Amino acid sequence: MIGDGMGVTQISAGMYSNGNKLNLEKFPVIGLHKSYSSDNLVTDSAAGATAFSAGIKTYNGAIGVDTDTMPVVTILELAEAAGLPTGLVANCSITHATPASFVSHNRYRKNYEEIAADFLKTDVDLLIGGGAKYFERRDSDDRNLSTELRSKNYVVESFVNTDMKDVRPGTDKNYFYLTADTEPLPFSQGRDYLVPAAKMAPQFLQKRDINNKGFFLMIEGSQIDWGGHANKSDYIISEVIEFDDAIGEVLDFAKKDGETLVIVTADHETGGYAIQYGSKMDSINGAFTSDYHTADLIPVFAYGPGSEHFAGIYENTAIFDKMKELFGL
Amino acid sequence: MIGDGMGVTQISAGMYSNGNKLNLEKFPVIGLHKSYSSDNLVTDSAAGATAFSAGIKTYNGAIGVDTDTMPVVTILELAEAAGLPTGLVANCSITHATPASFVSHNRYRKNYEEIAADFLKTDVDLLIGGGAKYFERRDSDDRNLSTELRSKNYVVESFVNTDMKDVRPGTDKNYFYLTADTEPLPFSQGRDYLVPAAKMAPQFLQKRDINNKGFFLMIEGSQIDWGGHANKSDYIISEVIEFDDAIGEVLDFAKKDGETLVIVTADHETGGYAIQYGSKMDSINGAFTSDYHTADLIPVFAYGPGSEHFAGIYENTAIFDKMKELFGL
Repeated sequence: MIGDGMGVTQISAGMYSNGNKLNLEKFPVIGLHKSYSSDNLVTDSAAGATAFSAGIKTYNGAIGVDTDTMPVVTILELAEAAGLPTGLVANCSITHATPASFVSHNRYRKNYEEIAADFLKTDVDLLIGGGAKYFERRDSDDRNLSTELRSKNYVVESFVNTDMKDVRPGTDKNYFYLTADTEPLPFSQGRDYLVPAAKMAPQFLQKRDINNKGFFLMIEGSQIDWGGHANKSDYIISEVIEFDDAIGEVLDFAKKDGETLVIVTADHETGGYAIQYGSKMDSINGAFTSDYHTADLIPVFAYGPGSEHFAGIYENTAIFDKMKELFGL
Repeated sequence: MIGDGMGVTQISAGMYSNGNKLNLEKFPVIGLHKSYSSDNLVTDSAAGATAFSAGIKTYNGAIGVDTDTMPVVTILELAEAAGLPTGLVANCSITHATPASFVSHNRYRKNYEEIAADFLKTDVDLLIGGGAKYFERRDSDDRNLSTELRSKNYVVESFVNTDMKDVRPGTDKNYFYLTADTEPLPFSQGRDYLVPAAKMAPQFLQKRDINNKGFFLMIEGSQIDWGGHANKSDYIISEVIEFDDAIGEVLDFAKKDGETLVIVTADHETGGYAIQYGSKMDSINGAFTSDYHTADLIPVFAYGPGSEHFAGIYENTAIFDKMKELFGL
């Protein structure tokens, strides 16, 4: 699980604003990763997610490609190839840097329509995120990728017809739920699907796991980063708390299941966010040094079998290496 | 070991400036503590150190006293009472908030002469730090506390006569080395005793440990905090790297010894420090939100027997509880 832009201060502010508690406190193992990219001490989300998805340091803006813009195999693709069910859930568009870096290979993160087309080349069992426009009303061609996906063993539904809370996907087909035309709203403006999606997703993938090999699922709390870019403390806090509630759902699943490793981290910190003197637990006075990312070490939280491998300080790329080894891929 | 004001960003900047490596990377266990005090989400160093030394949340400014200004027993005092050798090493004055909170009990951190007098009431085996003036040329009375300490089984030496590098204290007496008249210089201006002191101190205390019960030693990297207050990135970085070198000396001892638990943390973050876009590993572009402390969660690093107890997220006071339990005090 990736809280985009969720550095130590974002976690701290979310925790204090949530009555001095978070589900993150239930994790027995903490590490710190080095988030820098191949071309910058301050990474972006594309290079940051590609480090997690493919175990390489690449340039800022790169989606699943190396420094020569050549595609690299991702952990999701390795899992698919090994017959494991896979899923991506985000509260940004599904073509945005973080989820995209697990399935797409593109030289530049903003080529959203090219990235959307890459979803046809994979067989991800579960997709939940925004960006319907890049699939259904494209500028670059007349393809309707949702129609193409339906002819390729997908059920595709969207926010227009079905509320996330009412979604009950059958497990005989892949399932794609489009949550917004482009980018979903902030939590504070009524977007609230991440928690029910985080509850549904592991159950769905477990049912799809007919060979009992396990599954791979990435869930992103996307807009913590956007609160940082906007230098809005309240935006950060509400997004962290929603993401932490989603973590709670996944931990509940993992606790019952007993065989699921849960990893929570961020790609980078955003905003140079600080909790200033004069703050109280229920009234955070936030300040910022930047409207972009910073180069902080980033916390990693691990729970479940293999979690002990995520202690200590290591490169962000090591998270891929550890996942790959623990999956036996 | 306490890096005053050493939040995640301070560690990150020190690490990158040091060629992307720190001795902190050798620690197998990482935790995060909640640094707030009894009266403020943003602690000061006095309340922060008293949380570590005595396991209580108290008000900002309190030195080893509770919210009613009543003295509380410290881990150092418990260790002394149990017959363990004890030591305090700092690169600020020894009467400054962090070291003071382990031996003194005072309602207000700036009562330096009262705090100095409290050192007569204890029997700390090893003291290294600044503040000669508060012992030898006092405004509030005509006492010479160094003379009094000498008559109380102490060898007292100072920077005036002996360089730290030439210090070879006999282990038949307690040893007090005064490193400056008031506050020692920054590392960048030539102060360089923390690393040799960190090498000598555990060896000295081990020799004093004739009953083989173990020892308690607190080493503070004091001026990371002052770099933050001054909003000077270079100041922070040079102090972090010196402190990390001191950590390396202690780790070397602990590795050979095999029975020593090493804990490294900070009381709080200072400056709302961030590593901005445009930074390179060897050229950190730092920015700040404040000239005071912030309320970030603070990393805890642990190495050696019992280190596993320091994983996860917990209150700063839990560090006292864990040390007390592991010492069996």
